[in-house]
Amino acid sequence: MRMVDLITNKRNGNCLSPEEINFMISEYVLGKIPDYQMSAMLMAICFQGMSDEETSIMTNAVAHSGDVVDLSRIEGVKVDKHSTGGVGDKTTLIIAPIVAACGVKVAKMSGRGLGHTGGTVDKMESIPNMRTSLSQEEFFDVVNKTGLSVIGQSGNMTPADKKLYALRDVTGTVSSIPLIAVSIMSKKIAAGNDCILLDVKTGSGAFMKTLDDSIELSKKMVAIGENAGKRTVALITDMDIPLGHAIGNSLEVIEAVNTLKGNGPEDLTEVCLNLAGNMLYLAGKGDLDTCKKMAQEVIDNGKAFERLIAMVEAQGGDTSVIKDTNAFAKAPYSFEVVSDKEGYITHMNTELCGISSSMLGAGRETTASTIDYAAGIILKNKVGDYVKVGDSFATMYASQESLFEAASNKFKQAITVGTTKPELVPLIFARVEKNKVEKF
Amino acid sequence: MRMVDLITNKRNGNCLSPEEINFMISEYVLGKIPDYQMSAMLMAICFQGMSDEETSIMTNAVAHSGDVVDLSRIEGVKVDKHSTGGVGDKTTLIIAPIVAACGVKVAKMSGRGLGHTGGTVDKMESIPNMRTSLSQEEFFDVVNKTGLSVIGQSGNMTPADKKLYALRDVTGTVSSIPLIAVSIMSKKIAAGNDCILLDVKTGSGAFMKTLDDSIELSKKMVAIGENAGKRTVALITDMDIPLGHAIGNSLEVIEAVNTLKGNGPEDLTEVCLNLAGNMLYLAGKGDLDTCKKMAQEVIDNGKAFERLIAMVEAQGGDTSVIKDTNAFAKAPYSFEVVSDKEGYITHMNTELCGISSSMLGAGRETTASTIDYAAGIILKNKVGDYVKVGDSFATMYASQESLFEAASNKFKQAITVGTTKPELVPLIFARVEKNKVEKF
Repeated sequence: MRMVDLITNKRNGNCLSPEEINFMISEYVLGKIPDYQMSAMLMAICFQGMSDEETSIMTNAVAHSGDVVDLSRIEGVKVDKHSTGGVGDKTTLIIAPIVAACGVKVAKMSGRGLGHTGGTVDKMESIPNMRTSLSQEEFFDVVNKTGLSVIGQSGNMTPADKKLYALRDVTGTVSSIPLIAVSIMSKKIAAGNDCILLDVKTGSGAFMKTLDDSIELSKKMVAIGENAGKRTVALITDMDIPLGHAIGNSLEVIEAVNTLKGNGPEDLTEVCLNLAGNMLYLAGKGDLDTCKKMAQEVIDNGKAFERLIAMVEAQGGDTSVIKDTNAFAKAPYSFEVVSDKEGYITHMNTELCGISSSMLGAGRETTASTIDYAAGIILKNKVGDYVKVGDSFATMYASQESLFEAASNKFKQAITVGTTKPELVPLIFARVEKNKVEKF
Repeated sequence: MRMVDLITNKRNGNCLSPEEINFMISEYVLGKIPDYQMSAMLMAICFQGMSDEETSIMTNAVAHSGDVVDLSRIEGVKVDKHSTGGVGDKTTLIIAPIVAACGVKVAKMSGRGLGHTGGTVDKMESIPNMRTSLSQEEFFDVVNKTGLSVIGQSGNMTPADKKLYALRDVTGTVSSIPLIAVSIMSKKIAAGNDCILLDVKTGSGAFMKTLDDSIELSKKMVAIGENAGKRTVALITDMDIPLGHAIGNSLEVIEAVNTLKGNGPEDLTEVCLNLAGNMLYLAGKGDLDTCKKMAQEVIDNGKAFERLIAMVEAQGGDTSVIKDTNAFAKAPYSFEVVSDKEGYITHMNTELCGISSSMLGAGRETTASTIDYAAGIILKNKVGDYVKVGDSFATMYASQESLFEAASNKFKQAITVGTTKPELVPLIFARVEKNKVEKF
């Protein structure tokens, strides 16, 4: 088998056989297929696409290029959730405790933030002493004991994905839907859960900018998951407006705690009930309405919040900041970003909001950057709100006053104020299940 | 400027600016742009194409990536000719003397054979003591003295093309018309001639399999040549049947000599008169008909043949084999390939004929292979001829009897015998000049 023939085949619009795909991935990881051949293949895939069968086989090959987690030591059904990345997306910290409180195990590996998006692991590390790097034994024990654990990725998982992603990043082949699907789903399959809920963010702050692309990506990913024997659902959710009010690590943990206690922002609460409901549905807890009601119940009766405390404790974290969020370390400086116009906020560029928060110290420009856990933004007004001159758009928090000027200028670029009240878009645009697409 | 942005632009169907193209080629030659980015770009070009302006600028950048020959020390108009490569294509050895005999200089660099196609330099080296590697001074002197010189490529010409071609070869990006045009024309521009005649072979033995592709390639190349200030014409000629009867190095020289003496095969003679006529036309010797008549005249009056002898002598070759071709070293073994069917030869796969000749020792499998100059094939019957069982298709020549079995089996695969007399296609399908395409 010669890679050049595989490239030519794909270039000509033919499908690659399972043997060819397995050859390609395994030899690439071994360094026997050079980057210059793989990048030509990736570009050919950008133009010619891949069938559901091809993406499934490639996903499986990438998933098995390194360690695959065996979760069989954890009893019961294990449900995973993946978000394609957003700004102010603290949902994992809310829905994992909800799902665990309903008796379904959550053994989740999360990522760190990069660029304008945050990462759950960073948010968790804003809790003093919280450990996000556990051995497999410890991880299983925490899940068996508390019902949930969220940790960072460890070990040699999906090395093919790491190599492919680095190559795509420098060869203009990032935005190919089948390649995105392979990248996401290979990691989910290697993570070993039984069911997968995908939160596909769409809009200005997301990787997928249009609903059509989001639906196409969701269909590909659901097909891959189901072909791998895992029940999979995708929700397409709005990322044209940051979720909730908080952007920044401890600020988001505080908002997550409030939401688990029933005092969260409406949009965040609704999205979380939908996400958690769908996770419970995937785990076979009943129809979707029943599952959403179960999620609401464990918020109302405090059981979900209990699960969060139990996990933080089991992972060595200081539960006092969870029990009383005023105990979190505060940023020494704050700054109000005020409107110089009167009118409705008609649009917020979520990506710019994320970048602005990152500039305050809450995010990473490169993987080597350090994070200021207390830095970030609390939104005071969002799309649809009416502001007067001098009204606050947001409060910014940082460790140095000098950071506010550039960050607030960037933030102001994100906000459009107009005279007409904008129509609000739904929080959840669509739901994709095997052979089924519902738009809302 | 970042290569990844250039790739993304091309992927999205945009044109690259002159600055971007020059950056890309110069940095690639320096090794500052890695192969994996260039191969992604090449694949994007395969799908999105390049405008005439882009191909012209890229050709110029590639031509100037190394040495550019300055032919100003040679007086008068210098005309180059390029063939896209065929089987039994000995036209250079015939038309260069014709054109020189008509007073137009031919200072030509030719290539060596590889795979199923032969190369003029190899054919010339079948003449004992013939030198094909001259210093620039010697090259200019031979042309000034004899009117023509044909040598191998030397020096550091078009290193960007060598690097790009090697990459295309292993990344499934060879068959892109703009990239082929850039590769051919960059070498022609670096070779420094005033006018360029392109012989675009089409058919089973050629790189371009269809007339449409050949016309598209010709138009691109003519546009590049004219944009570079060089008068350029392309003839699209048949390579569905080998040209003439001889395939193999000294066998082809003998056929070239016969043709220059007016005793060549009809098809070869007609193609050569057209090629030479067009070269004279490009050099401003008159209208095309006049130029073709001039070409015929110098065959008839022996002046063209004199030019061949003069060049061979000036390059150190043994002219006795040219004056009496019986003096060429003969292969010790011959073999008749006979028909086991009765009927018309309806098709010859020219590529397989070339491979068969190569298997006899006449060609190279790799650049390191050595050549048996006396080996090859003399075709006895061609497309349209009627053969009976036992009639000869061809006589094969080789240095070992053991080579005949595999080579003759391969050759027989090339021949189709049927009951209906096939319609003969024209030898020249089309002629492409600036803003003008004539089909015949």
